[in-house]
Amino acid sequence: MVATLGYAAAQAQAPLAPFHFERREPRAQDVVIEIKYCGVCHSDLHQVKDEWGGSMFPMVPGHEIVGRVVKVGAAVKNFKAGDLAGVGCMVDSCRSCPSCQEGLEQYCEKGFVGTYNGKEKDGKTITYGGYSNSIVVDEAFVLHISDKLELSAVAPLLCAGITTYSPLRYWKVGKGQKVGIVGLGGLGHMAVKLAHAFGAKVVLFTTSAGKTADAKRLGADEVVISKDPQQMKQHLRSFDFILDTVSAPHDLNAFLALLKRQGTMTLLGVPDKDPSLKIANLIFKRAQLVGSLIGGIRETQEMLDFCAEHGITSDIEVIPMQQINQAYERMLKSDVKYRFVIDMATLKD
Amino acid sequence: MVATLGYAAAQAQAPLAPFHFERREPRAQDVVIEIKYCGVCHSDLHQVKDEWGGSMFPMVPGHEIVGRVVKVGAAVKNFKAGDLAGVGCMVDSCRSCPSCQEGLEQYCEKGFVGTYNGKEKDGKTITYGGYSNSIVVDEAFVLHISDKLELSAVAPLLCAGITTYSPLRYWKVGKGQKVGIVGLGGLGHMAVKLAHAFGAKVVLFTTSAGKTADAKRLGADEVVISKDPQQMKQHLRSFDFILDTVSAPHDLNAFLALLKRQGTMTLLGVPDKDPSLKIANLIFKRAQLVGSLIGGIRETQEMLDFCAEHGITSDIEVIPMQQINQAYERMLKSDVKYRFVIDMATLKD
Repeated sequence: MVATLGYAAAQAQAPLAPFHFERREPRAQDVVIEIKYCGVCHSDLHQVKDEWGGSMFPMVPGHEIVGRVVKVGAAVKNFKAGDLAGVGCMVDSCRSCPSCQEGLEQYCEKGFVGTYNGKEKDGKTITYGGYSNSIVVDEAFVLHISDKLELSAVAPLLCAGITTYSPLRYWKVGKGQKVGIVGLGGLGHMAVKLAHAFGAKVVLFTTSAGKTADAKRLGADEVVISKDPQQMKQHLRSFDFILDTVSAPHDLNAFLALLKRQGTMTLLGVPDKDPSLKIANLIFKRAQLVGSLIGGIRETQEMLDFCAEHGITSDIEVIPMQQINQAYERMLKSDVKYRFVIDMATLKD
Repeated sequence: MVATLGYAAAQAQAPLAPFHFERREPRAQDVVIEIKYCGVCHSDLHQVKDEWGGSMFPMVPGHEIVGRVVKVGAAVKNFKAGDLAGVGCMVDSCRSCPSCQEGLEQYCEKGFVGTYNGKEKDGKTITYGGYSNSIVVDEAFVLHISDKLELSAVAPLLCAGITTYSPLRYWKVGKGQKVGIVGLGGLGHMAVKLAHAFGAKVVLFTTSAGKTADAKRLGADEVVISKDPQQMKQHLRSFDFILDTVSAPHDLNAFLALLKRQGTMTLLGVPDKDPSLKIANLIFKRAQLVGSLIGGIRETQEMLDFCAEHGITSDIEVIPMQQINQAYERMLKSDVKYRFVIDMATLKD
């Protein structure tokens, strides 16, 4: 077994604290990774607080993992000790349903195995995530990481990056298109960078006028204050695509009104209150309201390669493991530009 | 001018009664049609009662029009006296916006000219519809009707037919697909016939067990009573496409749950109360919720030709003009299988 030190919540709402546990002895297909950095995703916070229900404790959160391979199983083909490696939101899936066969493990019909707060395919072993110094993962769910990029800033690509890359690619966002990004947080700031890199004209929607300069630095061509009806009105029926990264309850109809005929609005977050929908916004324009969930393993590798080629990483603030509870408090106030990343070298007894 | 006799509502909520008016003298591009039959659409009722706001009186409803050409303007190329002809929901549009250029006049960016309760492009002349013995329409908005089909039963194709044909075609419904149709009314019964003709496996959703036999006769392979959660549960995540023809407020989420990954649910009706949306139904399956509005002129002709080739018409009950007010009352009780069609030969002073 692989002795591991992590940070865990002992129960719902409890602060995270040091936690010793064991990873499985690597199997033939397994890669053992020494974790260097782990991004802090808003979903970590939701699950630690058991806001989505069904949380399992003790919980070691973290699914934006980068590190270095220290050991591989006998049958591992694509990784060797010393390689940089990443792990995202999934560590396994059924691998046989149509979704898995198509490389869309995120839509596995039996449910993928979450990197933490999940159950292995044995139906009982609880998974522990990346707020820890090592992880053991089947190579089919391990990603290659380029050494061209700053490793700490790559970590958030494993969730925030792929969650925005996948819909932008699936709905073919690119040159000649006007694309809106709603919200400038962890997901939104990646969406701005990626949509810009794909050649689209990017408009960032935010409620905070203070984010204007930063949005432009990140790649937005224009910033619209979404609570100003006059500004919104100027963009009526003009968008090919809108990517809504906001999970907090908000009015979808104000954005649907900005779509062109046959435009698409993609939702990434599940608010805790169901929004109401003005159906006329869809009917009179043959518009589409769609959803998207992270991305498959093959596409995650494609995204990482794209980011390496184009020099794209997340804007981050590196914190020591010991500051995770304060970081959660700051996240609740949106006080982070734009992702906390834990430096795992700070994780000691 | 063309002296015309119709039935009009003098004001909101007023019963329809005989009404004499004049159609314009035919211009060079105009076709003069002697109306033989006109279908009775639920939107006639909404507009007569001014339930959508903005109704203009006196109002001559009717946009499911079939008849025979009696005269054509000097520049008319595609019609001659004696031809069968049809007119649907539109009698003009801007003809220059991208939508019009693409043959999607229903999404005209300046707004199409409705066949009744609309304003001509002069911005002032009110349009009068098909509850009348003649109509004068630019040939660009006149359809050819095959003499292979029973003319009275063709009339509803001009609205109910194209409104269901267009989304089934646009989202490529066909062989190997499982397709749900929600509601068995004027639109729903056409959707069942068309989806069946396109080769899909058709499941009809209804709240009335009494409609089962009829739905199967029309082409449904299976009927599901949508208010029975057990029956609904058996179809979880199994539909490629669902066409929702119901305008009355109802729960969309119960149907969204039945879509497969990447499935599409298309809405045709605008309820008077905005429904709430469970976004998880979209995100965890990359599903699409979309809308669709009637169809363009080119596609309407394609639909009419398809129906002629496949012997498809509407199931109708022919009524004399004098019974229109009673017909409206019966429609409110869904007491019609499945469309009333007015026999215009009954329209006399």
